[in-house]
Amino acid sequence: MRCDASGLSQCEPDVLAQEVPVALAFNDISHATLLASPSDLEDFAYGFSYTEGIIRGPEDIYEINVSSQPVGIVLNVRIASACMQQLKLRRRNMAGRTGCGLCGVESLDAVERELMPVPGQSARYDAHALSAAVTQLRERQPLHQATGATHAAGWAALDGHIDAVREDVGRHNALDKLIGARLRQGLSFSDGFAAISSRASFEMVQKSAAAGIGALIAVSAPTAYAVDLADRLNLLLAGFARGDRYTIYSHAEYLHDGSPA
Amino acid sequence: MRCDASGLSQCEPDVLAQEVPVALAFNDISHATLLASPSDLEDFAYGFSYTEGIIRGPEDIYEINVSSQPVGIVLNVRIASACMQQLKLRRRNMAGRTGCGLCGVESLDAVERELMPVPGQSARYDAHALSAAVTQLRERQPLHQATGATHAAGWAALDGHIDAVREDVGRHNALDKLIGARLRQGLSFSDGFAAISSRASFEMVQKSAAAGIGALIAVSAPTAYAVDLADRLNLLLAGFARGDRYTIYSHAEYLHDGSPA
Repeated sequence: MRCDASGLSQCEPDVLAQEVPVALAFNDISHATLLASPSDLEDFAYGFSYTEGIIRGPEDIYEINVSSQPVGIVLNVRIASACMQQLKLRRRNMAGRTGCGLCGVESLDAVERELMPVPGQSARYDAHALSAAVTQLRERQPLHQATGATHAAGWAALDGHIDAVREDVGRHNALDKLIGARLRQGLSFSDGFAAISSRASFEMVQKSAAAGIGALIAVSAPTAYAVDLADRLNLLLAGFARGDRYTIYSHAEYLHDGSPA
Repeated sequence: MRCDASGLSQCEPDVLAQEVPVALAFNDISHATLLASPSDLEDFAYGFSYTEGIIRGPEDIYEINVSSQPVGIVLNVRIASACMQQLKLRRRNMAGRTGCGLCGVESLDAVERELMPVPGQSARYDAHALSAAVTQLRERQPLHQATGATHAAGWAALDGHIDAVREDVGRHNALDKLIGARLRQGLSFSDGFAAISSRASFEMVQKSAAAGIGALIAVSAPTAYAVDLADRLNLLLAGFARGDRYTIYSHAEYLHDGSPA
């Protein structure tokens, strides 16, 4: 039941966002259970597997089986045996530990994965393209417009045009879905940048860098850890995007024109 | 480095929110590593332990050791042996599984914990008190005002006055800190309600119900799963709080006056 307690007219979205438990298994072995929006789940499986370092590329996934169950959805991902051996080794090292929070991270030393800095960076990002992308992203969030409860991640070409958007109740999932969608299409991560409707936390920067994304612009604020990681992983990080303004937090040298036209 | 790419004046907050890896251990055994704001960590330890069902009450925690390390903070919580035995049993059942996402949840069947519906509910919440609490909460978020990157959870008395606020880069952590702060002071969860600056997801409702909180009002939208769970766990859930308006999603019968005065 819904009512407007103040007696004023009701203007809230009337549709609720779905939030569904999604259990991710690799070669029939349970790996993680997350809460996610039940759309673009194959994209999610590709993106998660890639940004969490479980696969080396899309060719390591042979098949994804999506199975709806009474309490949620099981995604069983069949991956290359080399990847599975690696994953089993990682899991054996953690036997007897439950782990939660960060994926498979149980000690402080394992928080930061060993990621290479984003290669091939140059002054190739356009200052106006960054804000144009954020403006377009706002207009391309149908799920958020209907529910008010979801985040979005968009892929922008270097001119700022948004090519693809994925939405999810979880911001990490939205980014994983976007990355997975590009992987499945064999598209590169070097000919554009990512825009996100949310804050930029440590994990958003880590996932971006893991995919080789060279620039990330967030509608809201970054954390200090995210800025530090972006600095070290050679990723241009922008945040607080409002209208045509935003703040650059790392690697502003990759903007080819920092002043207005 | 920060600059304003558009050439307009810079108005963004200049302080970055800290986001620190926090490793939580019980009786020296690693349990979880999360990213959190490094404040009120004892409150967090109490709240997390309670809402995740690891302790039965504050008396089950004997000591908390906070240890700063180069890459983060270790919280070692010494708990009653009965609780530790229970936790070990839970962990043994999960040996060899890494788990991530939901805490200690690796299969869909375990997503929902067996929680009792919130007891002792009655038409004791005031419609205007709910909006008053949200308004006060907005004014009592110094970390968010400085950084733009944190969520808040506030405890409101039945008249809507906010008694305590906790902030964190993670919305679950902010709620756990608030719940922990009340536990440590021996305060009840039946003489007021919780207000949160974020969306209301499944886990926010689950944590609230686990603490016996009877009403939760969120600034932003709930998910369908959160509404369903609130309905089943006998919790009044309100969302989309804007000014003096909001929407009731479950158990509106616990408002003693749904119309304006």
